[in-house]
Amino acid sequence: MEKTVSPAIIKRLPRYYRVVTHLFNEGQTKVSSKAIAELMDVTASQVRQDFCSFGGYGQQGYGYDVKKLKSELENIMGLNKMHNMIIIGAGNIGRALAGYKGFGDGFKVRAVFDVVTDGIELGEIEVLNISRLKEYCAENKVDIAVISTPRSAAAKVAADVVDAGVKNIWNFAPTELDVPGDVIVENISMSESLYVLSYYMNRQEG
Amino acid sequence: MEKTVSPAIIKRLPRYYRVVTHLFNEGQTKVSSKAIAELMDVTASQVRQDFCSFGGYGQQGYGYDVKKLKSELENIMGLNKMHNMIIIGAGNIGRALAGYKGFGDGFKVRAVFDVVTDGIELGEIEVLNISRLKEYCAENKVDIAVISTPRSAAAKVAADVVDAGVKNIWNFAPTELDVPGDVIVENISMSESLYVLSYYMNRQEG
Repeated sequence: MEKTVSPAIIKRLPRYYRVVTHLFNEGQTKVSSKAIAELMDVTASQVRQDFCSFGGYGQQGYGYDVKKLKSELENIMGLNKMHNMIIIGAGNIGRALAGYKGFGDGFKVRAVFDVVTDGIELGEIEVLNISRLKEYCAENKVDIAVISTPRSAAAKVAADVVDAGVKNIWNFAPTELDVPGDVIVENISMSESLYVLSYYMNRQEG
Repeated sequence: MEKTVSPAIIKRLPRYYRVVTHLFNEGQTKVSSKAIAELMDVTASQVRQDFCSFGGYGQQGYGYDVKKLKSELENIMGLNKMHNMIIIGAGNIGRALAGYKGFGDGFKVRAVFDVVTDGIELGEIEVLNISRLKEYCAENKVDIAVISTPRSAAAKVAADVVDAGVKNIWNFAPTELDVPGDVIVENISMSESLYVLSYYMNRQEG
């Protein structure tokens, strides 16, 4: 089953989850591929094909069971597991992430690291000097390290978190990270998203 | 030319730009498709094909002129134009965006709007009550409206900015926006990126 899930489908999984969760919260018990397609930017046939690829099966003439679909999506993305997160870089983005409530119960920011931590208060989240990173990771289970440093510091920080044994990196720094093959990196770049918007604007104007 | 640029290539443009700008800043004058490919996650043949599609031509045995490539990428994405931005939603994310310096000279946040603006100081950026949105947009050229409100407010805010004449929306709210066909929306979802990471983690553990 795993082998048939393409990166394009994987990128759609969170959007399916958002739509299905919305329907679930509204009290809907079943949904058609057509209705899901209309809530997203895909065709009904694409929805059926995508769901098939990760084992979400609808019934002809009934559609999909919303609760079951939600639970299948949670399982495949591991959203029902606890992920302990640390953030490296307590700038605007790092602090915004530390305070963000929208990731769900499975994702908890436990500590934020920076070179200067004076005056930074983040409620129940520990704020620690970067020099204590390795010690912290040895004493606490860290599932995801979020890198929200400036670009210039990102490579060193990535090497340090890998050295500290962290296997998963969520990278907000605008640079590609060079990590060993067993470390998973997911990049999120605000500039990239903005430039894609700018591209479409420019094309429309031109 | 425009017609041949697929969404997949468009998503790679900002990454090419990042790599090429990096090389330019390091003083490199020429670069091979192989070197660019190594700095990204694509093949050299993909790089050549992508560049061809937007008119970036290299020379056999020489490679690409870094300065020219940078300038071509800026042109195609309109990065050399001025984009006046407003942010709606002065929460953590909105404030982080207002303070972010990494978008380049072509993108300026001019004003931030929210229902409550008391106590929010953002330097030279105006902080205004949301009730003044339409008036502001009538008096100032607004190229991009950034929506960084909670999900529950996003649909109303999108309708308001469209009503105020803004044609481009950069959406950070975790919901699909329903806008007229001539309005461009680029969505950026932190949760989606995190859940993609979680998917890969889960698959590796499973």
